[in-house]
Amino acid sequence: MASRTTQILEAAVRVIARHGVRGLRVEELAAEAGVSTGLIYYHFKDRAGVLRRTLQFISDRAGHYTTVRDPDAAPLTPREELEQSLLLELQDTGEVRENSSAWGELRASAVFDPLLREELASATSLWVREVTAMLTRVNPAAPASAPAAAAERLTALVEGLSMRWLSGGIPVDRARTLMLEAVEAEIAMLQRR
Amino acid sequence: MASRTTQILEAAVRVIARHGVRGLRVEELAAEAGVSTGLIYYHFKDRAGVLRRTLQFISDRAGHYTTVRDPDAAPLTPREELEQSLLLELQDTGEVRENSSAWGELRASAVFDPLLREELASATSLWVREVTAMLTRVNPAAPASAPAAAAERLTALVEGLSMRWLSGGIPVDRARTLMLEAVEAEIAMLQRR
Repeated sequence: MASRTTQILEAAVRVIARHGVRGLRVEELAAEAGVSTGLIYYHFKDRAGVLRRTLQFISDRAGHYTTVRDPDAAPLTPREELEQSLLLELQDTGEVRENSSAWGELRASAVFDPLLREELASATSLWVREVTAMLTRVNPAAPASAPAAAAERLTALVEGLSMRWLSGGIPVDRARTLMLEAVEAEIAMLQRR
Repeated sequence: MASRTTQILEAAVRVIARHGVRGLRVEELAAEAGVSTGLIYYHFKDRAGVLRRTLQFISDRAGHYTTVRDPDAAPLTPREELEQSLLLELQDTGEVRENSSAWGELRASAVFDPLLREELASATSLWVREVTAMLTRVNPAAPASAPAAAAERLTALVEGLSMRWLSGGIPVDRARTLMLEAVEAEIAMLQRR
């Protein structure tokens, strides 16, 4: 069974994905999580604490569904591993929709809310470093700055395409096709460096 | 002098860029614009009407600052025209910051608010068509679907990089460098098609 903290964080993601960051009030979160507001203040100190921990939680959860695989499946090539990791962010499942909606909402809110920025920047740089490592495995010969720049672009593109998909602009399959072609373009450029 | 409608729309962009879409109330907008709430209801019918027209206004304004040039300057090559049009979205000026913050906020809100989706989708597809036309001028020989896909990616990347920049994740110069390299990668891919 999920711990009380996890239960509160899962509820926070649902509330943010449904009503936005500004819609997140401690009273509403308590009702959604089925706990007292006192317990939330005890575990998270205040609303800012809830937001920071929710951001970490969303980032960890995305890290989980983009890397965990069937242990019996054939091993992936470095390129397949990269493609899969990026495409798993563009899946039409309840969990990914909810996670990505909440992430996009936190990103947009960080423009107005300096409190969120630091946490968002470290979650983002962790993600960029993981994608950089995958790109380096695809092309170990490229100069170090090239996979890092490609990773910044590919992750920013995942965010851009996710928001288009979640806001009803493009179907998820189109977002996936566009993403795969971006990987192709970036790998071709790495090979020319 | 700006018309009353323009004055209200400019105030709406400021309020959204400062407090988000959910922070936009007709009373607050009236105070910001220095007009009566009655005048806002007269011109825009309701809050949804304000949001729809504000989205069009932001889109038109971005279209303006990304295309208007000094008439005496040397003509640009198709590639320079494309690069300039994308880079002008990543400028550290008050107008671009405000416009892009409001655009990102409207994009994030459209995830929760179906009312915004249609208007956002048509503003986006207009932008994608413009960038597609520029890419076609860069490489007239590419099959028609290739510049369209590249334009979807480059515009989604502008959005992704803008949000990173505006949320304090990367400096604006880094966003511009990443954008120029993306143009390079996309044009190289078009030439291989």
